[in-house]
Amino acid sequence: MTKEKVILAYSGGLDTSCCIKWLQVAMNLDVIAVVGEVGQEHDGLEKVKAKALRMGAIDCIVADMRDDFADNFLTKAIAANAMYENKYPLLSALSRPAIAKYLVQAAHTYGAKYVAHGCTGKGNDQVRFENSIAMLDPTLTILAPVRDWEFNTRPQEMEWAAAHGVEVPTTKASPYSIDDNLFGRAIECGILEDPWAEPPADIYTMTVDPQDAPDAPEYVDIDFEQGVPVAINGKKMSMKDIVMDMNEIAGRNGYGRIDMVENRLVGLKSREVYECPAALALIMAHKGLEDLCLEREVLHAKLDLEQKWAVSVYYGEWFGPLKQAIDAFMANTQQCVTGTVKLKFYKGNCTVVGRKSEYSLYNPSLATYSEGDTFNHKAAAGFLEINGLSARNWAANRAKMGALNDSTSVCQPHIIDED
Amino acid sequence: MTKEKVILAYSGGLDTSCCIKWLQVAMNLDVIAVVGEVGQEHDGLEKVKAKALRMGAIDCIVADMRDDFADNFLTKAIAANAMYENKYPLLSALSRPAIAKYLVQAAHTYGAKYVAHGCTGKGNDQVRFENSIAMLDPTLTILAPVRDWEFNTRPQEMEWAAAHGVEVPTTKASPYSIDDNLFGRAIECGILEDPWAEPPADIYTMTVDPQDAPDAPEYVDIDFEQGVPVAINGKKMSMKDIVMDMNEIAGRNGYGRIDMVENRLVGLKSREVYECPAALALIMAHKGLEDLCLEREVLHAKLDLEQKWAVSVYYGEWFGPLKQAIDAFMANTQQCVTGTVKLKFYKGNCTVVGRKSEYSLYNPSLATYSEGDTFNHKAAAGFLEINGLSARNWAANRAKMGALNDSTSVCQPHIIDED
Amino acid sequence: MTKEKVILAYSGGLDTSCCIKWLQVAMNLDVIAVVGEVGQEHDGLEKVKAKALRMGAIDCIVADMRDDFADNFLTKAIAANAMYENKYPLLSALSRPAIAKYLVQAAHTYGAKYVAHGCTGKGNDQVRFENSIAMLDPTLTILAPVRDWEFNTRPQEMEWAAAHGVEVPTTKASPYSIDDNLFGRAIECGILEDPWAEPPADIYTMTVDPQDAPDAPEYVDIDFEQGVPVAINGKKMSMKDIVMDMNEIAGRNGYGRIDMVENRLVGLKSREVYECPAALALIMAHKGLEDLCLEREVLHAKLDLEQKWAVSVYYGEWFGPLKQAIDAFMANTQQCVTGTVKLKFYKGNCTVVGRKSEYSLYNPSLATYSEGDTFNHKAAAGFLEINGLSARNWAANRAKMGALNDSTSVCQPHIIDED
Amino acid sequence: MTKEKVILAYSGGLDTSCCIKWLQVAMNLDVIAVVGEVGQEHDGLEKVKAKALRMGAIDCIVADMRDDFADNFLTKAIAANAMYENKYPLLSALSRPAIAKYLVQAAHTYGAKYVAHGCTGKGNDQVRFENSIAMLDPTLTILAPVRDWEFNTRPQEMEWAAAHGVEVPTTKASPYSIDDNLFGRAIECGILEDPWAEPPADIYTMTVDPQDAPDAPEYVDIDFEQGVPVAINGKKMSMKDIVMDMNEIAGRNGYGRIDMVENRLVGLKSREVYECPAALALIMAHKGLEDLCLEREVLHAKLDLEQKWAVSVYYGEWFGPLKQAIDAFMANTQQCVTGTVKLKFYKGNCTVVGRKSEYSLYNPSLATYSEGDTFNHKAAAGFLEINGLSARNWAANRAKMGALNDSTSVCQPHIIDED
Repeated sequence: MTKEKVILAYSGGLDTSCCIKWLQVAMNLDVIAVVGEVGQEHDGLEKVKAKALRMGAIDCIVADMRDDFADNFLTKAIAANAMYENKYPLLSALSRPAIAKYLVQAAHTYGAKYVAHGCTGKGNDQVRFENSIAMLDPTLTILAPVRDWEFNTRPQEMEWAAAHGVEVPTTKASPYSIDDNLFGRAIECGILEDPWAEPPADIYTMTVDPQDAPDAPEYVDIDFEQGVPVAINGKKMSMKDIVMDMNEIAGRNGYGRIDMVENRLVGLKSREVYECPAALALIMAHKGLEDLCLEREVLHAKLDLEQKWAVSVYYGEWFGPLKQAIDAFMANTQQCVTGTVKLKFYKGNCTVVGRKSEYSLYNPSLATYSEGDTFNHKAAAGFLEINGLSARNWAANRAKMGALNDSTSVCQPHIIDED
Repeated sequence: MTKEKVILAYSGGLDTSCCIKWLQVAMNLDVIAVVGEVGQEHDGLEKVKAKALRMGAIDCIVADMRDDFADNFLTKAIAANAMYENKYPLLSALSRPAIAKYLVQAAHTYGAKYVAHGCTGKGNDQVRFENSIAMLDPTLTILAPVRDWEFNTRPQEMEWAAAHGVEVPTTKASPYSIDDNLFGRAIECGILEDPWAEPPADIYTMTVDPQDAPDAPEYVDIDFEQGVPVAINGKKMSMKDIVMDMNEIAGRNGYGRIDMVENRLVGLKSREVYECPAALALIMAHKGLEDLCLEREVLHAKLDLEQKWAVSVYYGEWFGPLKQAIDAFMANTQQCVTGTVKLKFYKGNCTVVGRKSEYSLYNPSLATYSEGDTFNHKAAAGFLEINGLSARNWAANRAKMGALNDSTSVCQPHIIDED
Repeated sequence: MTKEKVILAYSGGLDTSCCIKWLQVAMNLDVIAVVGEVGQEHDGLEKVKAKALRMGAIDCIVADMRDDFADNFLTKAIAANAMYENKYPLLSALSRPAIAKYLVQAAHTYGAKYVAHGCTGKGNDQVRFENSIAMLDPTLTILAPVRDWEFNTRPQEMEWAAAHGVEVPTTKASPYSIDDNLFGRAIECGILEDPWAEPPADIYTMTVDPQDAPDAPEYVDIDFEQGVPVAINGKKMSMKDIVMDMNEIAGRNGYGRIDMVENRLVGLKSREVYECPAALALIMAHKGLEDLCLEREVLHAKLDLEQKWAVSVYYGEWFGPLKQAIDAFMANTQQCVTGTVKLKFYKGNCTVVGRKSEYSLYNPSLATYSEGDTFNHKAAAGFLEINGLSARNWAANRAKMGALNDSTSVCQPHIIDED
Repeated sequence: MTKEKVILAYSGGLDTSCCIKWLQVAMNLDVIAVVGEVGQEHDGLEKVKAKALRMGAIDCIVADMRDDFADNFLTKAIAANAMYENKYPLLSALSRPAIAKYLVQAAHTYGAKYVAHGCTGKGNDQVRFENSIAMLDPTLTILAPVRDWEFNTRPQEMEWAAAHGVEVPTTKASPYSIDDNLFGRAIECGILEDPWAEPPADIYTMTVDPQDAPDAPEYVDIDFEQGVPVAINGKKMSMKDIVMDMNEIAGRNGYGRIDMVENRLVGLKSREVYECPAALALIMAHKGLEDLCLEREVLHAKLDLEQKWAVSVYYGEWFGPLKQAIDAFMANTQQCVTGTVKLKFYKGNCTVVGRKSEYSLYNPSLATYSEGDTFNHKAAAGFLEINGLSARNWAANRAKMGALNDSTSVCQPHIIDED
């Protein structure tokens, strides 16, 4: 009798290698490993595949998801200026739904009823994988061996691994937990668990220390079409290549590091360090262009929806209905976000120093204070009178009632000179 | 017969000097000038006072508003992480209501029925002055000579000035328009009216060019009590002194420049350059501490209200009822924002590299991945099941209806290896 | 030499009749009147046209805009559950942009450079007309004779009318100001200007007094497809006919009256009475169906955007970019709002008493408390533990600090029995 | 050796009676029952107490929480116009934290380490109890027998009850599940689980059927002070008595029924029927007064925060930090919500027909269209020009680019008359 099949998101590390074995031993399933190339550091996905097969997987798919990831996930993040808690550009929160899509596709190809991931019970990624898989195919059953198996500590896991023939790394493990993809790199654990400790220099691989960056600034022009980056310094490129190039450019100038305490969906705060040179630079450039091209009320309302979008994606709702509806709003606003932004990099700094667009709403003849001014200054008096009427009416009412405006009594000015 | 009196916000420049004369000549009023010290650059407010009197003002008050400005305005801006359009820390929008308070007070002292300011008809400051004055005393009549007088261009104004004995500057005017106070410096006009042009080096006075900043990083500890900065490197200081010290520290490290296109209340976009070293550094530090001390839902909701607060203040509603109600929300959230943040400055960079608080909600025993972990991993499965139920129910319904989730068909993965 | 042309929104009343004459006399323009049929009460638009021509208009277009108004304006209002300040379904705010579209079209047809309307300077409608016209064709010049002409009071206007051959109504004018269209009727002025006075019975024409409505309830089924009403009691109809039928049904049952104080864009509060039987009934039914078909997070986020949409439209931004972007969000949410709602009318009441949909997210096997329950009760413990972790961690921290939760000390319970 | 103690929220019904027994048998705890009087229907709380003691509780506290509930919970709900999903005035969501406060207090009095409630695993109330208890005293351990015990169905529960001497009701159980308190009554289950079925007449006890209500309208004046109802028809009363009187008045006029499908925190939709005559009437009156007394921007921003407040409370976060911060905002807005509202009840209808306040912002001399008008009509032209500038600038840019405003091409008007 044939066994049921399970699709496993496989990285080649100890946890997911144990998963391959545990899914066979404890769950009696045939395992198909899926190795996703999303831009992470690795030394050969063929080696990872070979290891999966050695662990007993009946098959292993190595899929290059980078163009899909860049074209269909990162572009939307840029349109939404994605920043969870105004700081974190959602690295892992973006790759999880991308990988989940391939897992579901593989389940359909192989006729598997199960999909498994190697996430723990206290992180955000379990939620992102499981929500994404369930929304793409609610009939699949999801397994989370690392959350469910019987061993809890690292030593116990290594003991179980040794007993079941799982290859155990011979070098001492890094104290850090890393997740990385095209859009950046997340680092946690070790000394970083102390939020008062400055992150050590050796945790970074995508960005040089600003002190080691070149002594001369570097200027880069980025072209956008309808909110999507399409060229660097005038050279048209795929989104994937733009992200990779920007990682290189920003990284060598020491730009892209984030050190923060953030709020996980599972209710705890964690200290996270990120390097995301391309993500931060592209979003900064995109915002710079939006300042030129978006009408004020749109820009103000979009700030709120950007927060909602980021929270939805952080919470694993990429394929959910709210995020999709907000995407429709975002797409509508991006129709005229076409133009060029000039960035200046220098030793950890990145600044927008120029922006231009054929759709620019910046109107020199209205804005100028020199001759050529077309603004109707006389209209301002009428505007002020009506614009302030509601609040002034309120103030007059307060005064009339003898209920003094609290603010007037906050303090008494110190008149230093009254001769 | 005695003339009616007008209180004029006086700076000593050409515009407000013409105002003193015009209010006498065209409006037949006695002018009392008020010169506010809010931390701006000047070379002697006594000289400004003397000039006011030479221009015919019947009196001139020079008031040091700096402590009031710092204690009652800047602290609230920090509590609200005040950033209009997520970028601009509201420099002038904060000083205008502070000055307006003194104008109204002077009007009461002198029995004046009129208050005047020297703002033009296309900026934001006219709105801030007029709303603030009207809300503090709706019975006062506000005059805006620069908006109303009969001459429109600079040459016409200088001709009028010469004809009426107003002292005209003999040196060529700077091409830039500047407004500054304790919280920073705003620069506009000239070449800056071209949003594609990089700001020239010579416009900055509070910050050195990052390339000219020291080669070694500088670390600074800032203590907060209930959201208010109270000490630098352990030394207790008044809010005014903290702001002045931080301007010095951040400025010498090349930190605090902003180059942006923003949306004015009067409906036009303008390109603005700011230097606000203390403002940006203190708000960054404050946010770093809030990440540690604010509960997640409070922090998320506060992000929205911070935008509303900033828009209200930018639009001149400092003394208005909405801003006051949001202040009550803010104050409630700041009760436990007490602790210390460590900033690292280096050649234009400012980074939070450490934060600690007795009210920290970061819980090492929950957050750690090492031994001592107290998080209930098994609870996660139940959490995920219920947390995702609403969206998964939606997805199952879509699948059942044959209405495929749009997202699944966005693209087809390119499987690079399937031997 | 030929005169320039102006397109005037013409109603046949005294104000717009004076406008026809004034535009000729004071502005030396050829007037083309546009009479829009948007569902208002009238006794013959041919008579109105004849009057326009008698007043000297060189042409008069009578256009039936009702299907366009229903199909392209009212459907969007229903999708957005349009309620300004949660109460007012935006009657006039919807017809103004619809009429403006025709004015601009007529300007193009006739080669007119001017467009004129008959609104006063203190209402909202001037803003709606002018914004809409300017957004559809910013090259047109807009005239507002009633705001600009030299006579201010009703007697002055009538004197001018008499002197210029404008037909003056011989019957005493109603004390009320009325605007009406397919979606309802707005009544203001007269005794209604006293917000403490109950509206008199004789102001209503679309709804009977609840006390005069039938003694038996009336049930009505409304079918929606993708958020749009498509049938009443199973009978497919055009949107226009659905609105007209619902006005009849709801009106005869005394349903659809609103008595409110609202905030105008121009900064004053006004007391308004509305009758909008179809508007209220259709929006109520639409919400009832959305409760069944919208996923929770979508429904909650949509409530906020509904407010933003209503404010935008009330403020005259129908053709503006923010309202269009929100429409994109709304349209995305409506894809599955297909089903049937049963309304019960009775003497002023309208209640949703049943709702069904093939896209219903109500899941009886999850919701039931009887046998057949498929909800995983055991998962709840894990959910509660993680769901509450963030706030509980906050509370534990407060307790640890000795900073008691304020709420605990609010009051002491009165224990009535402790034997 | 003494047993540990548990405080149990006790109602006298089968579930909590089984809880008393189960906590003794399965958990080996001494049970102290707390019976809360929150305004629910009952036939003698002394009987309930006697039953608790018969079931083996070592003590039973009967506490009249009604004044506390009214003064400290219901007043805040009215200030926030509490309506979850714009429809449901949060009945049970308000009583749960009130009861939890007494449970925690009893735990402290009796030195109990455990607190227990009788809620199931699929409702909202488990969350409200557990969050509230944990926030008031995070050291207490919470037990939820009904979620955790070994029997799942009603027959199994009754079998266990019989076997353990728990008194089983001899009459056939009602098909409905009821929860009620001062603020209203919630009814679910039975035929109501079919959202297409109209609720049967016999489920209501607080409201008569509108068809059976008196044939004459009833008018009621409600006085508010700072947002709190203080008198009915001029008679000062406690909040508790006001709520009870309003339940009587509104209920006898058939007003206060709600039939809705709502979204629970645990991710499922449920069909709920409520009667809450006082809640709906008092909130409607409060809103009517706010329309008069709140400045426009405050009122608009408050609408958003009312939603956030309602969601927080519905989700069980009464004692949480976000809800407390929003309460601070709300309290600030209520300072001038003082005045009188006249309600008219008639056969299921409740309408605000008059409102007055010494703090009224309705300004007759601004609002009037008759003589005495003080509004500056001429200012309107300036206001319109500046107010619309941002969006018109956007439109002009679109036109210039040849990118036609989409809205213009939506449809072509049908000109019915162009002779």
